[in-house]
Amino acid sequence: MPGMQGAFLSVDHIGIAVDNLSEAIERFQKLLGGPPESIEEVKEYDVKTAFFGVGETNLELLEPTSLDSPIAKFLQKRGSGTHHVCLSVSNLEGLLQALKSAGVRLIDETPRKGAHGKRVAFVHPNALCGVLLELSEQMPHNEDPSR
Amino acid sequence: MPGMQGAFLSVDHIGIAVDNLSEAIERFQKLLGGPPESIEEVKEYDVKTAFFGVGETNLELLEPTSLDSPIAKFLQKRGSGTHHVCLSVSNLEGLLQALKSAGVRLIDETPRKGAHGKRVAFVHPNALCGVLLELSEQMPHNEDPSR
Repeated sequence: MPGMQGAFLSVDHIGIAVDNLSEAIERFQKLLGGPPESIEEVKEYDVKTAFFGVGETNLELLEPTSLDSPIAKFLQKRGSGTHHVCLSVSNLEGLLQALKSAGVRLIDETPRKGAHGKRVAFVHPNALCGVLLELSEQMPHNEDPSR
Repeated sequence: MPGMQGAFLSVDHIGIAVDNLSEAIERFQKLLGGPPESIEEVKEYDVKTAFFGVGETNLELLEPTSLDSPIAKFLQKRGSGTHHVCLSVSNLEGLLQALKSAGVRLIDETPRKGAHGKRVAFVHPNALCGVLLELSEQMPHNEDPSR
């Protein structure tokens, strides 16, 4: 599938499920030598998050705010640790179509709205040896209703 | 601890434990649209690896070549998936001393030799909410015996 290779721009973030965000922030702050760049609640996913930038990517700590959160289920099953990897892509819609045609199992066959004016979609971990992969595309300003 | 923040340069790679490297390469190739940039055996760690570049970082697939490999033990316990995150740092030795002084639990208190002319050290997953973190520093050419 020539052409798809250019769709992948960077690792946007590494999502880490934690039981207690304040305690996790303290731990990562001790490692990285400074506070997180942002702390916020993402209501669509029932999580509180903190982002620590490292180069062009971020470590995203995720604490569930309800038992229905997918992060709460992950913590119950596996304990705290790396939950997902997010790649920044261009042309998410075209990429999802190409992946579907190639037989890659997707959780989302079309993009949905993510945080920070982004469109996102998840690839099923069964397609990638147990890795839950998020694909994320920055929406153009004129298509972003949150701006 | 001001000053340590600048020690972290980038996410060097995300290590993914897999049962079968050939099959895993096929899966990630289907996703990313191209072959891995390198495939090699790292005898010190009893693993075969494949690297796929994404922006400034890499997805590193790891298949154990012996039952003694830490990757084999991880697969038995947790199944395939993200095994570790590696951050590229400057002044690894100084950083390890600072982390030790700050009470961060380390697997390696001094750097050891890694692959590709690098010095590496691991932080204990208990210090970072279950995340196994590798710290990696490029050795100066004149100190790298493999060159």
